[in-house]
Amino acid sequence: MATVKGAATTRAERARQTRRRMLDSAGELFLRDGYAETTMDRIADRAGVAVQTLYYTFRSKGQLLCELVEVTAAGDEEVAPVAQRAWVGEMLTATSGQRVIALAVEHGADIFVRAAPLWPAVAAAASDPHVDRYWAGVTAGRRAGQARMVARLDELGALRPGLDPDRATDVVVTLFGHEAFTSLVTRAHWSVPEYKAWLLTTLAQQLLQRPRLAPRAYADLSYSAQVTR
Amino acid sequence: MATVKGAATTRAERARQTRRRMLDSAGELFLRDGYAETTMDRIADRAGVAVQTLYYTFRSKGQLLCELVEVTAAGDEEVAPVAQRAWVGEMLTATSGQRVIALAVEHGADIFVRAAPLWPAVAAAASDPHVDRYWAGVTAGRRAGQARMVARLDELGALRPGLDPDRATDVVVTLFGHEAFTSLVTRAHWSVPEYKAWLLTTLAQQLLQRPRLAPRAYADLSYSAQVTR
Repeated sequence: MATVKGAATTRAERARQTRRRMLDSAGELFLRDGYAETTMDRIADRAGVAVQTLYYTFRSKGQLLCELVEVTAAGDEEVAPVAQRAWVGEMLTATSGQRVIALAVEHGADIFVRAAPLWPAVAAAASDPHVDRYWAGVTAGRRAGQARMVARLDELGALRPGLDPDRATDVVVTLFGHEAFTSLVTRAHWSVPEYKAWLLTTLAQQLLQRPRLAPRAYADLSYSAQVTR
Repeated sequence: MATVKGAATTRAERARQTRRRMLDSAGELFLRDGYAETTMDRIADRAGVAVQTLYYTFRSKGQLLCELVEVTAAGDEEVAPVAQRAWVGEMLTATSGQRVIALAVEHGADIFVRAAPLWPAVAAAASDPHVDRYWAGVTAGRRAGQARMVARLDELGALRPGLDPDRATDVVVTLFGHEAFTSLVTRAHWSVPEYKAWLLTTLAQQLLQRPRLAPRAYADLSYSAQVTR
């Protein structure tokens, strides 16, 4: 029994490694040559698998891209959906509005950092209905998470008086989205800590009754040294 | 002589009307059917011209789109490049930082209002090298205009102390771009005056030493009733 189980584990592990190699090869080629130029044949070639294996595993180049975005955004260690991760729990139980936003910025922006290199491929594949549906789901999921953050601010009585939570969410979606990240980090070459510090102070100004930041809200986070007020 | 001149004027006027009809037909079809679906044949058909006339006038569907964006963004009355229009002069000679921003928002956002319906066509045509070059030029031109606005704030001593003009321009590009307009107006259905009021208060917060707005900065502008602080 032990031997059979061991063999099965090894087989599963080998399949996992092959899958990972196909995803890595696709990612490298999308980045180097662009999405349109990268054919399934070339991905299979680079990964050292038959093209049939690639199609059997991912169905189409569009579905392969979506899977790649998913695992890249999640990071190597984490596989749980964003809403179920530890930092989301921490954010939704934090007891100051500033801390809620600081945690959202720290961890939410890290998802952008990981996924940003693949965004041009997603844009290039926008006419693929599978990619389009996937991206609409990503966008809707991000808004849902941001709406939960705003709801927590509201529960804490931390929202700026008169600010409607729906409109507050519209603002968060606009400022804390992939377009603003692309504009500041990818195009204008801000460092990630600079971007996070800007996002924290801007969201605090936009959302909070008390926008002036207290160091305890962010002092243990990666970008604390960049927050100057 | 008078007769000949009259005939020439009429011919020039007829050519101008035909050109306008081709542009209008293209715009209607891009909006109704999307950029990819709209063929040069269908545009010619709708405009009541031979497809050869369409190609002779605009060379390609991509160039036709760029010309359409250009005249749509400029509006019916204005044909001068943005940098040469009266409101830009007014903005660059205004003597309060708040007034500089208020004028930029009033008139700059109106360009977005006119051009926004065509942005999906531009995105769909992004792989056309002519469209790609044109759009890069539009984006660079917008940044140049926004950098001039920031330079005027700097001249007036109105910039927040320690704020580098280049970084201030990065922020303006991010907040006062077509992505944020799309997010708030097109997707979240904010009214244009609500969007303008948000942009004014946000840019004032981000850029100015004295972010609290004085009514004289915006009271004569179209969105003044929406500015609540």
